[in-house]
Amino acid sequence: MSRTIEVCLTPALLHLYAIENSIVVIIDILRATSSITYGIDNGAAAIIPVEHVEDCLNYADRGFLLAAERNGEVVTGYDFGNSPFSYVKDKVEGKTIVLTTTNGTKAMRMAQKRAHQVVVGSFLNLGSLCDWLKVQDKDVLLLCAGWKDKFNLEDTLFAGAIVHKLRKDFVHFDDSCVAAEDMYVMAKDDLRTYLHKSSHSHRLAQLNIEEDVQFCLKLDLCKAIPVLEEDQLVRLAI
Amino acid sequence: MSRTIEVCLTPALLHLYAIENSIVVIIDILRATSSITYGIDNGAAAIIPVEHVEDCLNYADRGFLLAAERNGEVVTGYDFGNSPFSYVKDKVEGKTIVLTTTNGTKAMRMAQKRAHQVVVGSFLNLGSLCDWLKVQDKDVLLLCAGWKDKFNLEDTLFAGAIVHKLRKDFVHFDDSCVAAEDMYVMAKDDLRTYLHKSSHSHRLAQLNIEEDVQFCLKLDLCKAIPVLEEDQLVRLAI
Repeated sequence: MSRTIEVCLTPALLHLYAIENSIVVIIDILRATSSITYGIDNGAAAIIPVEHVEDCLNYADRGFLLAAERNGEVVTGYDFGNSPFSYVKDKVEGKTIVLTTTNGTKAMRMAQKRAHQVVVGSFLNLGSLCDWLKVQDKDVLLLCAGWKDKFNLEDTLFAGAIVHKLRKDFVHFDDSCVAAEDMYVMAKDDLRTYLHKSSHSHRLAQLNIEEDVQFCLKLDLCKAIPVLEEDQLVRLAI
Repeated sequence: MSRTIEVCLTPALLHLYAIENSIVVIIDILRATSSITYGIDNGAAAIIPVEHVEDCLNYADRGFLLAAERNGEVVTGYDFGNSPFSYVKDKVEGKTIVLTTTNGTKAMRMAQKRAHQVVVGSFLNLGSLCDWLKVQDKDVLLLCAGWKDKFNLEDTLFAGAIVHKLRKDFVHFDDSCVAAEDMYVMAKDDLRTYLHKSSHSHRLAQLNIEEDVQFCLKLDLCKAIPVLEEDQLVRLAI
């Protein structure tokens, strides 16, 4: 197998990549793909990602849990926000959740139009995701959701973590892989401190989600790999 | 002054940046902006960047030198190719040169439509460029020309070199700045070896331009800063 692994640094560059025969890993570390991983691992039947709070209304009256935040607060009338701590077993087991996530949903929908398969990655399922990617006979594209189509550090660091784990199993790497892996190797002993350099760190501090950030950087807490099937993320059968 | 410096990793992301009050630095290290810097420093009256070899024909019969390459060879009937070694004083002093450069030209034209000012950077003029940027009362966008709209290592490393030199003079940095600077700091003691990790290194080896690459990584060989005025790059008066 002479497989290729590439990193697409923002959804605005996705059109440059041939992904028809690729598995695309969606990466939106703070906090969408971390919360999705944790929720599916804790037994949620399905998570439906939507782009806008208003889109949740399309799913009202079906018994789904609705998750939406504005400015770090749970929207009135909704069940919870985007914190991974909301996605614990007691709350989500057997439930279907509609989750608002702007950057992540956009990346998923764009990838789904062309990719062989779309899965979700986060530090929480890094190990199981890489173990699975290793034994698929497919090229891999790591798609960073970024921030409003711009590059961000946390998604790129996680892409680098995957590249670092899969280096021996792939032959072709693009320049973004090289950069992401080197950044990850540089930062991996203290990811949280490294992210303080981020332009988002002020924004994050204002949202008062420091505990969420710490949680989203934990390694290998989950086994589940969420996979996109039509409009729902469900647990990949492995 | 509370100035912002940002790195746009490829021209495909330029629309995301507000540059109306910014100086945009065009970066296409292998080899367009290196050859342009060297040519202007060596007294070329002007360099006109064009995207396609065919575009050179619009400038025929005006006494200009025409520079075009296909697959690493000078196109028959043209005066020279894109190697910086062609842009020595004996050949270019007082002359106007039409230079074919796909990624670089595209980046310049896109930036020119909105930016306050467009200048050209390379390792060859790093010091004088940074000295000048320091004392302008403007935000700065470092625009990597990349490779066919994708991220590349060499342009990003150079953007990182600028950020590293200007860190004390600017207040706001985006995530791309952080990544580019850290990559540069990691690679700076041996840029050539670092670039061997690049996906382009095979392509570069095939073009037989190793001496060009070595030259394009030399620091501070030139004082000139090329500036875009209408369709021509000329020496900035400083």
